[in-house]
Amino acid sequence: MNGAESLLRSLVACGVEVCFGNPGTSEMHFVAALDAVDGMRPVLGLFEGVVTGAADGYGRMAGKPAATLLHLGPGLTNGLANLHNARRASSPIVNIVGDHAASHSRYEAPLTSDIQGFARPVSQWIHASASALTVGADAARAVQASMEAPGQVATLILPADTAWSQADTVAAPLPLPSRAPVSGATIANIAALVQRGVKTAFLLRGDALQERALHAAGKIAAKTGARLLSDTFAPRLQRGAGRVPVERLPYFAEQVVEFLAGTELIVLVGAQPPVSFFAYPDKPSWLTPEGCRLAVLSHAHEDGTGALKALADVLGATGSIAGHSVRKHMEPPASGSLTPESIMRSVARHLPEHAIVTEESGMAMAYYGLTESAAPHDFLTLSGGAIGSMMALSIGAGIACPDRKIVNLLGDGSAMYTVQSLWTQAREQIDVVNVIYANRGYKILNNELKRVGASQDGARAASMFDLQDPSLDWVALAAGMGVEAVRTVSATDFDAAFASAMQRRGPMLIEALI
Amino acid sequence: MNGAESLLRSLVACGVEVCFGNPGTSEMHFVAALDAVDGMRPVLGLFEGVVTGAADGYGRMAGKPAATLLHLGPGLTNGLANLHNARRASSPIVNIVGDHAASHSRYEAPLTSDIQGFARPVSQWIHASASALTVGADAARAVQASMEAPGQVATLILPADTAWSQADTVAAPLPLPSRAPVSGATIANIAALVQRGVKTAFLLRGDALQERALHAAGKIAAKTGARLLSDTFAPRLQRGAGRVPVERLPYFAEQVVEFLAGTELIVLVGAQPPVSFFAYPDKPSWLTPEGCRLAVLSHAHEDGTGALKALADVLGATGSIAGHSVRKHMEPPASGSLTPESIMRSVARHLPEHAIVTEESGMAMAYYGLTESAAPHDFLTLSGGAIGSMMALSIGAGIACPDRKIVNLLGDGSAMYTVQSLWTQAREQIDVVNVIYANRGYKILNNELKRVGASQDGARAASMFDLQDPSLDWVALAAGMGVEAVRTVSATDFDAAFASAMQRRGPMLIEALI
Repeated sequence: MNGAESLLRSLVACGVEVCFGNPGTSEMHFVAALDAVDGMRPVLGLFEGVVTGAADGYGRMAGKPAATLLHLGPGLTNGLANLHNARRASSPIVNIVGDHAASHSRYEAPLTSDIQGFARPVSQWIHASASALTVGADAARAVQASMEAPGQVATLILPADTAWSQADTVAAPLPLPSRAPVSGATIANIAALVQRGVKTAFLLRGDALQERALHAAGKIAAKTGARLLSDTFAPRLQRGAGRVPVERLPYFAEQVVEFLAGTELIVLVGAQPPVSFFAYPDKPSWLTPEGCRLAVLSHAHEDGTGALKALADVLGATGSIAGHSVRKHMEPPASGSLTPESIMRSVARHLPEHAIVTEESGMAMAYYGLTESAAPHDFLTLSGGAIGSMMALSIGAGIACPDRKIVNLLGDGSAMYTVQSLWTQAREQIDVVNVIYANRGYKILNNELKRVGASQDGARAASMFDLQDPSLDWVALAAGMGVEAVRTVSATDFDAAFASAMQRRGPMLIEALI
Repeated sequence: MNGAESLLRSLVACGVEVCFGNPGTSEMHFVAALDAVDGMRPVLGLFEGVVTGAADGYGRMAGKPAATLLHLGPGLTNGLANLHNARRASSPIVNIVGDHAASHSRYEAPLTSDIQGFARPVSQWIHASASALTVGADAARAVQASMEAPGQVATLILPADTAWSQADTVAAPLPLPSRAPVSGATIANIAALVQRGVKTAFLLRGDALQERALHAAGKIAAKTGARLLSDTFAPRLQRGAGRVPVERLPYFAEQVVEFLAGTELIVLVGAQPPVSFFAYPDKPSWLTPEGCRLAVLSHAHEDGTGALKALADVLGATGSIAGHSVRKHMEPPASGSLTPESIMRSVARHLPEHAIVTEESGMAMAYYGLTESAAPHDFLTLSGGAIGSMMALSIGAGIACPDRKIVNLLGDGSAMYTVQSLWTQAREQIDVVNVIYANRGYKILNNELKRVGASQDGARAASMFDLQDPSLDWVALAAGMGVEAVRTVSATDFDAAFASAMQRRGPMLIEALI
């Protein structure tokens, strides 16, 4: 057995089942080992942003890591933006980067680069294997590190000689750390604060946004009148009919100020205090209202679900939940123009049970509320602000949850970033519908230009935000990568196309010209 | 005047004329300033790999920097692979990365990241502006740093508040450093070594591969019998009919060993000693023949052109050049199958004078010799091994040299990496023909799998190298981004399509199914 096989067998032994990759020469032995070892599904991406975005999606939905396989420094750098998103989402990922053989690194060949330097800002754990004899153990430790709560990017650098040299071990899995319980004292303290009857909001993130935790939070809210909030960009939220509704923090600073006005206590459950996404001249970044108290029920690495249950018990919040989200029938659109609102009405109208909805579009975000009354679903957002995430992410989500329909709500500007994702969607027959909000521009930036106080009357500035001249043809792009696609220009067209897409399996793209 | 305008006016004053960018909220004031300041051409890329690749191409052909404009850490990371290539090509680039306002950075908002950490491995110079009052001077210094020989990536980080706050200066250009002359003693020393009559090869790179330097090198070769060599991947080489021919080092280690066998003296002119691109089990990385002497005529930052001229004088090499490349008429292809060889015959046959040819395909590399007898042209290669360079690079080359035809020779795997380049080619009406060697696979990796000694009989390994299931449709992809395209399946079809492409202006794509 060589090092590559030792690595692969160890990963499989540790429960890693999927490897998203785009390998090169330095990773050849790893690739060869794929056929010698059962239990690892290789998935090719035609660009590394697809690879790391898919690993993020897999981590969010499977709750355990996939491996990546990236080719040296440049392969890693192409995947960094989506690793940044994954880090912000606390997704577990075993990020494997091939390197030159140790004997070769000293020669500064063209592809030599500072892999550790590139990896450090996105990795909570980094290790470069020193020998084929240790790669198995290194892999087991990487899996363990990736699962340290709430989930981490663990980067394992694999020099080519550690893959091709003789090895003899398959590492056994290391114990996975469980989430640290929140102390009774902390829970009593939060209970006392909440019981003062001040205007309270719980800001939830991570495990606290999944159904079991929300059930406890819903009881607390019913008992105390507290609001339940999520960040603007929560990595994963379970919502829709029958679920406990959570209010989403708005995007812009001044909207958040208004939204939180009067709040006297914010209880953080795996979340950070709210701050604005960007800074603007003369607008606040720190958004906790003046005089409002901040209290931590659980840190991100702690057991937020357990803490919410314990808090519910201490508060005697054992009654029924005040208001589950209720399924609402959406009327079919009157024939009329296609708008972001009409799109979301159709999504809410036809979304099947337990779909996974991803959002990477300001125009989708504006009508987020409409899907509150849709069938229950998981809602995934752009956690780190690095656009080009969701089309790739849906691949991993689809592989983690093959029986669930995925709906990507994508701006055209965002979707171009990792447009190569469509090819992998087609190859792996991901059950996904990509809805492209084709407004042919970085529309949000036109707004931002005004908001930052910059003037907006010049052609050169405007040229940096519009995606016309030429216009993108999404039906052609999808066809070029083997994905069936349709263009819609009216609300009724879109409604019919979306309804039909929900009835079929496999990847599809709907260009919504708005 | 705000900081953004100060920055922009200072860049223009320092001779920067083009800004390749994909800005976001934190760069809004810079974008707004584009309309207030004359003399800067903004060019939008729909992905930052396009932006930095274009800047590399501009730097290689213009011999001075363009600016980039990247959005925070993720925008930078998306551009890192092509900055790696640019660093290896010694291309001058002023790499501008927006950052959060200083007042915002402390809050760890979603897009906050370690920009300096990401930038360091590709940047010879990094500075983060501290105030709007200094951004002009920072820009002038960045331009100067980018022009330190042989050319550098100078990264300037621009917090949003330095753009929007009040400034009052336009910085004057700083003196550009001239290349250091090579001492007379070094030249005399090399002359003495060369005159011993041992089997000598000059390995040339950088300025030494441009026409004036090659003229001197050609005289030296005629006088001494020395061989003239270039690296396998030279950033820019002037060649073709009427030029002094240079032998290209082969790609694989064992080929280089054979190629250099018997060489007793290698004179380095701006080049490093030859090493293999990758390591392989039981194959050498260091490729200087045993017993061969290495001598440095000029380092990369020194005046290689002047050194070659001085050496020619000392050697009395004032006679004529032994063998200029001679224009050869290529026969039109007999009707027959389209092959990498037939493609290159057509390229050589129809290439117009002073075209710019880029290469990012192993199948193109295999027939490199055929264009030696084509019309004189500049030949640009993938200097850093990070694929996804040349389709983007051609944008910058085209903007630097608007009157020259560009021919990109691209593997399909490579071309997918920054496929968004086609859109910018269309918008800017770059006069470029993209030839896609559509073998529907990472063919080079199938070879590499065998070469590294890994077995190759498994379906999983094979799936990581083939781009079928589904096949890419390049005509559709090009149409989706506004580029006219045609598919060719025979040698005669390709020849006709390529000939016709040489007669028209503007971007085009020819898919060559091989």
